[in-house]
Amino acid sequence: MKNGYPKKVYLNGEIVDAASAKISVFDRGFLFGDGIYEVMARINGRFIYGEAHLKRLDEGLRKINIGFDSAIVATEIPKLLQASGLADEDCLLYIQITRGVAPRKHAYPDSAKPTFMMYATPSVLPDINTVQASVATSDDFRWSRCDIKTISLLGNVMVNEYAAQQGRYETVLLRNGMVTEASHSNVFFVKDRVVLTHPANRYILNGITRQIVLELCAELNLQVREEGVAIEAIQKMDEAFLTGTTTQIASIKQLDDHFFYRGDAVGEITKKLQVAFQEVKNGNRIRF
Amino acid sequence: MKNGYPKKVYLNGEIVDAASAKISVFDRGFLFGDGIYEVMARINGRFIYGEAHLKRLDEGLRKINIGFDSAIVATEIPKLLQASGLADEDCLLYIQITRGVAPRKHAYPDSAKPTFMMYATPSVLPDINTVQASVATSDDFRWSRCDIKTISLLGNVMVNEYAAQQGRYETVLLRNGMVTEASHSNVFFVKDRVVLTHPANRYILNGITRQIVLELCAELNLQVREEGVAIEAIQKMDEAFLTGTTTQIASIKQLDDHFFYRGDAVGEITKKLQVAFQEVKNGNRIRF
Repeated sequence: MKNGYPKKVYLNGEIVDAASAKISVFDRGFLFGDGIYEVMARINGRFIYGEAHLKRLDEGLRKINIGFDSAIVATEIPKLLQASGLADEDCLLYIQITRGVAPRKHAYPDSAKPTFMMYATPSVLPDINTVQASVATSDDFRWSRCDIKTISLLGNVMVNEYAAQQGRYETVLLRNGMVTEASHSNVFFVKDRVVLTHPANRYILNGITRQIVLELCAELNLQVREEGVAIEAIQKMDEAFLTGTTTQIASIKQLDDHFFYRGDAVGEITKKLQVAFQEVKNGNRIRF
Repeated sequence: MKNGYPKKVYLNGEIVDAASAKISVFDRGFLFGDGIYEVMARINGRFIYGEAHLKRLDEGLRKINIGFDSAIVATEIPKLLQASGLADEDCLLYIQITRGVAPRKHAYPDSAKPTFMMYATPSVLPDINTVQASVATSDDFRWSRCDIKTISLLGNVMVNEYAAQQGRYETVLLRNGMVTEASHSNVFFVKDRVVLTHPANRYILNGITRQIVLELCAELNLQVREEGVAIEAIQKMDEAFLTGTTTQIASIKQLDDHFFYRGDAVGEITKKLQVAFQEVKNGNRIRF
């Protein structure tokens, strides 16, 4: 296949070339977006918080009652990495599990076998994400179960495209005027040395990097308040940043027309967290 | 393939056996639920409001900027019906168009070719749907773009499953305490001979059968108010029914613990609309 595709795809126990990785059009992933996914980053031979990712995958499957024993995932990953020539390389691993193939009816079928797909692509993440992100804002018109990491992602796709159309790094979402998260990352603010982020309820996906940042805040004796920030309060914030598996910790320089920083400045606490996160990746901090 | 699958599938210009109808795992329909679908019923050699369905398909594609010339759909349908042995049979036609195959990134890819899939299954709809439906209610936690007939359907799947678990016919959804629609049908009430249904805004899918019913109300000189009905007002309603392409017009006998009717009773206006809808199908009323 052309550029951008992985070398190999793991599909239901087989490892095949990307061009040969095909599923039935009756897969409920294709007909209903009926599945769960994960993305994990492998750095220096280890997946960053791999266990936390796999635990969330399992929780997602249980939330939507897909009967799949996710214990197999950890045992199959090394085979895929080996076949992909990535056993010793930094890479991103994508995992998707759907409810499987069945004649099209909304309700869960009685006896579908879940579809289990994975692939890995070479990817060297920077030590620190040095982007000075400009972000747009948009109404958060997604569903109210954003805690489920589902493949029914059209809402996220549309708001991510909105950023792309404007040449922005991300779109920050507002539900009832409060910042929830972004199209595929979490959002943090800092005000008077207090770190603010939306609580991990049904309106956001509780990102693994978000969770790491909260742990780092505790280690660094930074006060955290998990609460939504109103759009009107944005201009009063001292710092703003995004978190995510590939985003890592990305400073937000501009939100709509508001500039948090001029020039190459990055907030003091943002920078401190970026450095601490780099240490996490190097295995020098907290569980990894 | 086993029971329940169609004989043939149309996929990107080819007509193949259902078991051979496969798409890439990199199809954005599979990775992101990034597509649009339609279901139309063919009765006595004609698709009920086929043009309206194809128009809505086209509008959906434009809403999410999938660059697909849907004019081809109408010209390809006869080939599929012929190959499926359904050229002269009543059947249901399923149409799905996704943004196509591309390396996984949320924003729309520059040059993906949309995936176009269709299949038809034999289906003889009853002249009148005589079900006396018992329906559950649930919070409407879906997104706020329900006007888009997307395949990102996990929310609809979950609430439909909720009905199935309780042995109910459908789940009626409540947003801020107001009835919007059901998991895959629209909801109507009648009070003092006034027909009530949620307005066709971003919180419901403007069903083709819903539109036909509104036209029939005009023909029958029935007053219509397109407004949401509050859950507290349900008990005061005289009649209730569901509409949809396969549901047609289905009387609601019971909603949660409330009974609209005892025994085999069906509301007078519901019945009148069912009879008028039967005439639409027979080609004896309004455009068809």
